Amino acid sequence: MRQSQLFTKTRREAPADETSKNAQLLIRGGYIHKEIAGVYSYLPLGLNVIKKIENIIREEMNAIGGIEMKTSVFQNKEIWEKSNRWDDNVVDNWFKTKLKNGGEVGLSFTNEEAYSNILKQYVSSYKDLPVYPYDFKEIFRNEARSKSGILRGREFYWKALYSFSKDETEHLKFYTKATEAYKNVFNRVGIGDKTYVTYASGGTFSKFSHEFQTVCDAGEDVIYFDEENKQAVNKELWDDPLSKDLLQTLNMDISLVKQKKAIEVGNIFTLGTKFSEPFDLKYKNEKGEETLVFMGSYGIGLGRLMGTIVELLSDDNGIVWPKEVSPFAVHLVRLGDNTETISFADKLYADLQKKNIEVLYDDRDLRAGEKFADSDLIGIPVRFVVSDKTVAENKVEVKKRTEGESELMLAEEALKIL
Amino acid sequence: MRQSQLFTKTRREAPADETSKNAQLLIRGGYIHKEIAGVYSYLPLGLNVIKKIENIIREEMNAIGGIEMKTSVFQNKEIWEKSNRWDDNVVDNWFKTKLKNGGEVGLSFTNEEAYSNILKQYVSSYKDLPVYPYDFKEIFRNEARSKSGILRGREFYWKALYSFSKDETEHLKFYTKATEAYKNVFNRVGIGDKTYVTYASGGTFSKFSHEFQTVCDAGEDVIYFDEENKQAVNKELWDDPLSKDLLQTLNMDISLVKQKKAIEVGNIFTLGTKFSEPFDLKYKNEKGEETLVFMGSYGIGLGRLMGTIVELLSDDNGIVWPKEVSPFAVHLVRLGDNTETISFADKLYADLQKKNIEVLYDDRDLRAGEKFADSDLIGIPVRFVVSDKTVAENKVEVKKRTEGESELMLAEEALKIL
Repeated sequence: MRQSQLFTKTRREAPADETSKNAQLLIRGGYIHKEIAGVYSYLPLGLNVIKKIENIIREEMNAIGGIEMKTSVFQNKEIWEKSNRWDDNVVDNWFKTKLKNGGEVGLSFTNEEAYSNILKQYVSSYKDLPVYPYDFKEIFRNEARSKSGILRGREFYWKALYSFSKDETEHLKFYTKATEAYKNVFNRVGIGDKTYVTYASGGTFSKFSHEFQTVCDAGEDVIYFDEENKQAVNKELWDDPLSKDLLQTLNMDISLVKQKKAIEVGNIFTLGTKFSEPFDLKYKNEKGEETLVFMGSYGIGLGRLMGTIVELLSDDNGIVWPKEVSPFAVHLVRLGDNTETISFADKLYADLQKKNIEVLYDDRDLRAGEKFADSDLIGIPVRFVVSDKTVAENKVEVKKRTEGESELMLAEEALKIL
Repeated sequence: MRQSQLFTKTRREAPADETSKNAQLLIRGGYIHKEIAGVYSYLPLGLNVIKKIENIIREEMNAIGGIEMKTSVFQNKEIWEKSNRWDDNVVDNWFKTKLKNGGEVGLSFTNEEAYSNILKQYVSSYKDLPVYPYDFKEIFRNEARSKSGILRGREFYWKALYSFSKDETEHLKFYTKATEAYKNVFNRVGIGDKTYVTYASGGTFSKFSHEFQTVCDAGEDVIYFDEENKQAVNKELWDDPLSKDLLQTLNMDISLVKQKKAIEVGNIFTLGTKFSEPFDLKYKNEKGEETLVFMGSYGIGLGRLMGTIVELLSDDNGIVWPKEVSPFAVHLVRLGDNTETISFADKLYADLQKKNIEVLYDDRDLRAGEKFADSDLIGIPVRFVVSDKTVAENKVEVKKRTEGESELMLAEEALKIL
C-alpha cells in the first residue's frame, strides 16, 4: 500500500505511561493503540503482523490434524459450575457481566469447559476419536496490574487447541507432535533459537507439563537451562523440593545450568480426565465399555508472541521484523520528486504488486532523514530506495534492516532477493 | 475434508427450545452450538461459512478504500463519557464489567467512539483525509429477549466501517460507493434479489439513513416497498407524519406499495459531526482553518447475514447454500465399499484437492438414505455420488441441491461444472 494512504503516523516519543519496550516501539511505529492498561487496539500495521502470526499457527495446527472453529466469548455459568471453576474464590481473574433479564455470564478466560461441553454432544464411540479442535479468540483476564504492553493483557488474542484422545498412549503421540508444531511456530516467527521447551509441573495426570520459554530480559518468568543439551526447567519446578527426583530424570548437566528471565510464549498440558470426568465425556471402546476421554490443552497468545519478537529483535532505531511476520515484505522508499524518479518508483511499486509481493510504498513528500527514521522504526526487513541518484544509474539501493551497508542493484536483481 | 474426520454430526431433531428456523437447521446440520440464548459458538462448518462471508465483505470494503484494523472489545469509560453514551439511561443495552483494581469497562456494542478517539491522534491536516477504517469483531448487546437464533444475538460477529471525510460532498461520494459495495455483498451472498435499499430516518445530518432490508417472514422489521421502482421505506419513516413530505421526494408509486416483514442485514448512516464534535476531531483545511471531520458509519452483522441466507433459501430437506458462501464447493458422497468404488472415490477426492476445489468427502459407512439426508441438510450446492453402479459406467452422478434430477457424467466433465 501507499504510505500516504496509511492513516497512522510514527511518533518520536512514546506516551509517558508506557514503560515496556514492546508497547513503546509498537505505539511509536503506529502498530497499536492503548485503550486502557492491558487493552490495546491493533492498527492496520499491527493487524498485518497478527494475521501473519495467525496464519503460521493455523498452518501448523492444521498440519497435525487441528480443526478450526469459533467459540463464543460469553460463557454459561452452569457449564463452569460443573468443573467448579465459576466461583471467584476458585478462579480469581474472571470478568463477569449481568444479563438484563437476570443471571450472569463470564467472559472467556480459557476454553476447556466450552470444548468439553460441545464435544459431549458429538463423542460417543471410539470411532469419534481423536479430535483436535481449536480456535483463535479474544481472551479476558482480570489482571491487577498490566505494565508489560502486549506481553500481558486484560484482553488478548489467543489460540487454544484441545486434544480429545482415547487414552494416554494416543494422547502422548499427539502431545509429541504438538511439541514439534510449537517449535515450528517459534522457529518460523524468528525466535526459535531463544525459545526453550521448558519442564513445568504437571498436575495429576502427568509428571510434567511444558512451557515454551523465550529467554528475554523483559520476561516475568525465570528459567534454569542447559544451553548445550537444550533443556530447561521453570523456577517453580526447580525450587520445589518434591521435584528433585524428577529433575534427575532429565538430560541436564546441572553444572552448566544458567538462570535467566524468560517470556512464556506457549504452553501445553496433559489434562487427562480432569475435565472429561465432570462433563461425563465418555466413549464406548471397541469392547463396548464406557471410557473417559483423555484430554490435553495447547495455548499460544498471539499478542504476547508479537510483543516478544519486538522485545528480542528490535535495536536502537526501532523494530526488526523477521520476514515471515513482517507487515510487508519490502519498504519501497522514494526520495525526491523528479518526474523520472517518481515514475521509476511507481513502476517498481506496480511490478511488486503484480508479483504479489507485499510492499509499503513511501510516496510521501518528506526529507530523506525522516523517511529513513520511519523506515527503521517500522522495521520491514528489506528496504528499496529509489532516488534521483539511483535512477540516474537505472538502479535501486537495497538495504536489509539488520545490515548497515546497502547495495545498488538493477530492479530485476532487487526483486530476486525478496 | 473427509466427513469421517469432522467431529460434528447431523441431528434429526432440533433442540426443543429453538423456535427459529435458522437456528434449528444450523444446529441440526452441525454448524452452530447454542451456549445461552442469543450466544452461539460456530462449529467447523459454521466457521467455514462465516469466513466466506467475511472474505466477501473484506474484498468489497478494500475495493472502496477500506483499511482493516482490530479494535478492542473492552471500552474505556472516559471515552464514552465524551459522547454521553456511557450512562445506562442513555444506552440501555450495554454490558459492563468491573476491573479488579477499581473502575468499570464496557463491552463493545458499536465503534464510533473507539474510532473517533483513535483518529483524533492521527488526523490534523486535510492531507490526512479521507480515511475509511473498518474491522470485524465481536459485538455485545444486552438484549432482553433472543429467540431469533443467529439473527439477533447478545454476542455477534460484526463488520463496522467508519468514513472520515473532509466535508459533506466528499462524504456523499463515499456514501454512494458504500451503497454499491453493500449491494455487491448481498448479491454475492445470494440474497440480492430480496434485499432493498430502504430509506430510514436520518437524524440531524441527513434527511435519510439507509437500511438494507431483506424481505423474509422471519424478519422483525416491516418495510413498505415498490417492487417495480426498487424503492423501500422502513415502518418508522412510513408511519411518521413528519416524513410525509420526505417520502414524496422518493421515486415510489404509492399505489404499488406492498408491506412485508424484513430482516435488516445492513445499515449505513451519515453521522456528520455528531462524534467529531465531542471528540474535537478537526483538521486544518487548505486555507489553514480548523474544520470538523464529517463522518459516516456502515455496519453488517455476519451471523445475521448467515441466518438470513438460511431463512430465505432453505427447503424442507435442509439448508441450500449459494455457491459463494457454501462451506464446501462440492459434497462427494461415496456409496458402498467395493474396492473399485472406494478407489474411484478416493481418486476423485484427491483430484478435487489438487485443483484446490473445497470438497467434503462422505467416506463414512452409512446407508445411502442417511447419507443423502445428511447431504441435503448440510446444503452444499453440488453433490457428486460415487457408487458401485456409477463406477461400473466409469461415471459420477451429479446433482445440484436445488434440482430434483441428477445426471451421470465422466469425472472430467463433473469437475468442469464446479
